[in-house]
Amino acid sequence: MDDRKNIIDGNLNCPLPITNYDRVTMAHGGGGKLSQQLFQQMFLAQFGNEYLDAQHDGAMFTLEGKRFAFSTDSYVVSPIFFPGGNIGELAINGTVNDLAMCGAKPMYLSVAFIIEEGLLMEDLWKIILSMQAAAKNAGVLLITGDTKVVDRGKGDKIFINTSGVGIIEPGIDIHPKRAMAGDKIIISGSIAEHGVAIMSVREGLEFDSPIKSDCAALNDLVRTMLDVSKNIHVLRDPTRGGVASVLNEIAGQAKVGIIIEETSIPITEPVEGACEILGLDPLYIANEGKLIAFVAPVDAEKVLMKMKSHPLGKDAVIFGEVVAEHPGVVVMESSIKGKRIVDMITGEQLPRIC
Amino acid sequence: MDDRKNIIDGNLNCPLPITNYDRVTMAHGGGGKLSQQLFQQMFLAQFGNEYLDAQHDGAMFTLEGKRFAFSTDSYVVSPIFFPGGNIGELAINGTVNDLAMCGAKPMYLSVAFIIEEGLLMEDLWKIILSMQAAAKNAGVLLITGDTKVVDRGKGDKIFINTSGVGIIEPGIDIHPKRAMAGDKIIISGSIAEHGVAIMSVREGLEFDSPIKSDCAALNDLVRTMLDVSKNIHVLRDPTRGGVASVLNEIAGQAKVGIIIEETSIPITEPVEGACEILGLDPLYIANEGKLIAFVAPVDAEKVLMKMKSHPLGKDAVIFGEVVAEHPGVVVMESSIKGKRIVDMITGEQLPRIC
Repeated sequence: MDDRKNIIDGNLNCPLPITNYDRVTMAHGGGGKLSQQLFQQMFLAQFGNEYLDAQHDGAMFTLEGKRFAFSTDSYVVSPIFFPGGNIGELAINGTVNDLAMCGAKPMYLSVAFIIEEGLLMEDLWKIILSMQAAAKNAGVLLITGDTKVVDRGKGDKIFINTSGVGIIEPGIDIHPKRAMAGDKIIISGSIAEHGVAIMSVREGLEFDSPIKSDCAALNDLVRTMLDVSKNIHVLRDPTRGGVASVLNEIAGQAKVGIIIEETSIPITEPVEGACEILGLDPLYIANEGKLIAFVAPVDAEKVLMKMKSHPLGKDAVIFGEVVAEHPGVVVMESSIKGKRIVDMITGEQLPRIC
Repeated sequence: MDDRKNIIDGNLNCPLPITNYDRVTMAHGGGGKLSQQLFQQMFLAQFGNEYLDAQHDGAMFTLEGKRFAFSTDSYVVSPIFFPGGNIGELAINGTVNDLAMCGAKPMYLSVAFIIEEGLLMEDLWKIILSMQAAAKNAGVLLITGDTKVVDRGKGDKIFINTSGVGIIEPGIDIHPKRAMAGDKIIISGSIAEHGVAIMSVREGLEFDSPIKSDCAALNDLVRTMLDVSKNIHVLRDPTRGGVASVLNEIAGQAKVGIIIEETSIPITEPVEGACEILGLDPLYIANEGKLIAFVAPVDAEKVLMKMKSHPLGKDAVIFGEVVAEHPGVVVMESSIKGKRIVDMITGEQLPRIC
């Protein structure tokens, strides 16, 4: 195809950015390199401003001297009910977590449904019930909403968008660009559970006890962490694209190197086994109730201890650190295989995981 | 079917609300009675709080002594390109307008795309360009976003959610419940253009000059109106469900009667003609660049004159008033047919209009 076309449509004659694709593919929504390319070459190229440029989980803005976080996510997970949760719960916790990763206290959420004609009223009701339960648990209010219905075959049961507003207390400064050499990297618990739970259902895998999604709201955990230290530089929940993608993004934005230890990364046996069967690398698999924290070395142990005392952080470990060498590159050390570069995924490992 | 079921699913054993439908139908998204029933019996029943109960175009909240408006809408219009606009422009203007109808100054928007695999990159680019142009025109910034891709046949080209935050200046108090007897009801221009533009394309109707959507951002018009009067009690943009549905909602919420004059309602000849061909009542058809204002009689002429001096309000007229009689009921007076009740639509006149 001709990569750079002129669009002549009224006053919109602006060249199409160079992309190797003439159509959107599943991988453009996978959270890896193609997602990033789409974002940078098309969205950022047009919408670009200081807020969006930050490429954080949410945007931060100041109004009347107060700092706020604002975040949005659409959820298209399939199936809509899965072990450990459903699309509604995920939609609440996901946006709560994005706000928490900005260091904000999540306050108010909007909810917008796109329902495919024919969805069982009972399924919708189950989703609504668990959204309300999740909102109550996270201490947020759903204050505005919207419902659209599309024809059968033009949607997939239900898609849910949640957007949220939170408030950032003075003294908190959490941002991917703040990762700096020496920072210890903590993960709050075992990885890859959400993605493996979804894939197991899709592939019809049966286990003695089913692998459950880790879907959970992390704002209370973040609150306790910030109570003991203001030296938390970066917070991130490794959702789509998993731990590997998130670390790569942070390394790139902060222009630092990252070294992680393979043996330190917590993973349960059933999840590891399922990954082997499914041929998936757990480092690239979505989590929905875990966070990664970059903490100044002086406070790292203190933050880790505090996390361990919280139900959602009891398996927290330090699994890596930030270095001045190899900026933008994530290196994994393993006792057996030596060192290897953990790159961002190009294509798409798991479609519609969230 | 058994209307009241018990859902036994883990801890979600809560009765399903009474609804006459066991599945979601297109009409549940049409903006009429069924939409309202779904909202009240399911969403409000669970999520209900003082903010959501307000049933405004957006929610208003106070943080640190400042008042904010927060609104969300998903756009699923089909076709995605139509005379006078496209889904991207609509998504920006729609949320800008919802914030403006709260009396807020729209500030920041989020954008979340759900793209069907196979969407032409060029179409996405056109949409992005017009979103940026619309945002610039409305004076808002797109500061956070999300992109999901769903499999071919599980979506319909592109759905867009926008959510927005605005700030409400002191002294402004605009709310559906504030409609009161004596208020003059103003409409900013001719009705039904957006809906008819979409339907004409779908039905393959050809006109000498195509009927264009009125899609426009109304925040600047609202600003000029608020500059001359703080006695604007209600603002509303008659989108899905049209003028008739919006007036019914306001009459119901404020527990007042509304009388409108048929002959005063502005409508262009081509739109009126198309409505006759298509068998549509223009009172129920969506507008995307018009507003209805309820203004205290003392300020009504002043506000009207100010509106007429603005490009988006030049055809503004007073077309009705609020009365103490027949609370909750909208009555239309016509020189020929006498009086008739303008009810809310039960089913669905126009699917996927926005």
